[in-house]
Amino acid sequence: MPKQVQIGVDGWVGYRPDIKILDCSVRDGGLVNDHAFSDDLVRAVYEADRDAGVDYMEVGYKASRKIFSPSENGPWKFCGEDDLRRVLGENPSNLKISVMADAERTDYHEDILPKEKSVIDVVRVACYINQIPVAMDMVKDANDKGYETMLQLMAVSVVPESEIKAALEIAARCPVQAVYIVDSFGSLYSEQVRDLTKMYLEFLAPAGKEVGFHGHNNRQLGFANTVEAVIAGANRLDATISGIGRGAGNCQLELLIGFLHNPKFRQRPILQCCRDVFVPLSKEMDWGYSIPYAITAQLNQHPRAAIKFSAGKTPQDYVAFYDQMIEEE
Amino acid sequence: MPKQVQIGVDGWVGYRPDIKILDCSVRDGGLVNDHAFSDDLVRAVYEADRDAGVDYMEVGYKASRKIFSPSENGPWKFCGEDDLRRVLGENPSNLKISVMADAERTDYHEDILPKEKSVIDVVRVACYINQIPVAMDMVKDANDKGYETMLQLMAVSVVPESEIKAALEIAARCPVQAVYIVDSFGSLYSEQVRDLTKMYLEFLAPAGKEVGFHGHNNRQLGFANTVEAVIAGANRLDATISGIGRGAGNCQLELLIGFLHNPKFRQRPILQCCRDVFVPLSKEMDWGYSIPYAITAQLNQHPRAAIKFSAGKTPQDYVAFYDQMIEEE
Repeated sequence: MPKQVQIGVDGWVGYRPDIKILDCSVRDGGLVNDHAFSDDLVRAVYEADRDAGVDYMEVGYKASRKIFSPSENGPWKFCGEDDLRRVLGENPSNLKISVMADAERTDYHEDILPKEKSVIDVVRVACYINQIPVAMDMVKDANDKGYETMLQLMAVSVVPESEIKAALEIAARCPVQAVYIVDSFGSLYSEQVRDLTKMYLEFLAPAGKEVGFHGHNNRQLGFANTVEAVIAGANRLDATISGIGRGAGNCQLELLIGFLHNPKFRQRPILQCCRDVFVPLSKEMDWGYSIPYAITAQLNQHPRAAIKFSAGKTPQDYVAFYDQMIEEE
Repeated sequence: MPKQVQIGVDGWVGYRPDIKILDCSVRDGGLVNDHAFSDDLVRAVYEADRDAGVDYMEVGYKASRKIFSPSENGPWKFCGEDDLRRVLGENPSNLKISVMADAERTDYHEDILPKEKSVIDVVRVACYINQIPVAMDMVKDANDKGYETMLQLMAVSVVPESEIKAALEIAARCPVQAVYIVDSFGSLYSEQVRDLTKMYLEFLAPAGKEVGFHGHNNRQLGFANTVEAVIAGANRLDATISGIGRGAGNCQLELLIGFLHNPKFRQRPILQCCRDVFVPLSKEMDWGYSIPYAITAQLNQHPRAAIKFSAGKTPQDYVAFYDQMIEEE
């Protein structure tokens, strides 16, 4: 188990140098606008992350052009090298660039180039429990090509413990650097986050791998649960600026940096990016906590019903939504 | 220590029958509009709480008319019997009516009537640490008059532990039924909430008194911290509909009821009140999480600077606010 950070009523006397933040504003936020963010926005997030001492910036997906049409999706769905270089140049900074590769939605053999030809540093493989075999092959492929690799096992709140353990046993033997607990439905409470973090560490720490946490804000627990994961020993933390993300969004990066005492992190560049980019953006794009997302989380369900409802004509008839969801249970 | 509620990845198999909810929407929300809520709003909250199985509804303050002008404050600043009866009648329900009495701001000897002449059930005395002596006299006065009494020791995040313990020792000997941990600045993290809850219980449980928690949502931890207090043994929980309250507001009642499994609580009447009353109200009144409140919380300060800033012309220049606050540190 990693050393615990000192947290208590007597003060905040320590920090854990191993903690690393990944800002997935552009990747997770891209789920709201089909990955069509402007170059200016992506560059603004890059500069804010770089100046704030954030460790990783996730710019988007490496999605298959055979499955997803480039005419219906913006550049950050595919993260081609030309698009990346147009915005990031050769990335002359310490900020590492991450892309997400969804199992069964990525032509990884062809589309993920050898590391030396790419501005990408990290491939994060995302999968559901039944996709672990293909995910392992994707991790191996990216690792062989020279990338740092991470694994996102999604929707753990509906996976039996025994199956999570089986997946962790497999992950512990593969060349992945970190495995994330992913609260896809925003349905986990703090005690569950602590138990899961300890379970992940039990399998992964002996193999020298880190545990990460990716929360959602359906019940305003995105930040709170990330703090609990830290306390339980998770060293890899996902967050987004202004909490941008699909539906209720994610853990707010500005709150997370306010919590962490690691002197390398700075809050001010993120606040500046909130003010200059995300406040104006929030007038055009819709994300953040609202009651329908709390209801799907409470039922431990994917937020798709809440997303559909929130886009409809009566997004504030919470009672109708509640009745509909209870009816369907 | 009270029996712990069963919370874990294996299920939600239990509940703690001793848990009681106090809805302070009208009292804490009144801090935003000088306690000038319409009779219709107060009645709608009353009916929602009654139907939802909420235990207490706090309607306002028993403020001194010598200190606060009735022409500058609405009726819920004073909670006169005429105003109460106009809206609640004789309160023919199980929902208990609470008022808050601030130490040194209440003419309690005169304004708090004998219980048999009042529709009020509970007097909650609020004080700072230096006001404990007067608060104890107020508790005694209300108890002697026949009321249930509770104590809110405010701003505990800036009170030395030794002084909190001294106050708890005194409170344990007075006729109060419950003492609340009050996170006035919204600055407490979960570990602090757990430690404080245990400390309060250590002094109060042997005397047969309950521990309560009143959170604020400055860092989106209002609900999360309330859950932590429950887990640590707090049985008295404050919340407000739609999280209404001064500044960043409070723990959302609708989320809290979604968390608690006590079968007497029902979520639907609260969602209905959100839809019919608080969504329209939110277009006129301003409350809820925003970055300036997160910054004052991070600095463990009263939110007054954030309130002032948020009412100004450039409420979203978070960087200017951050610089100003850091400068003043």
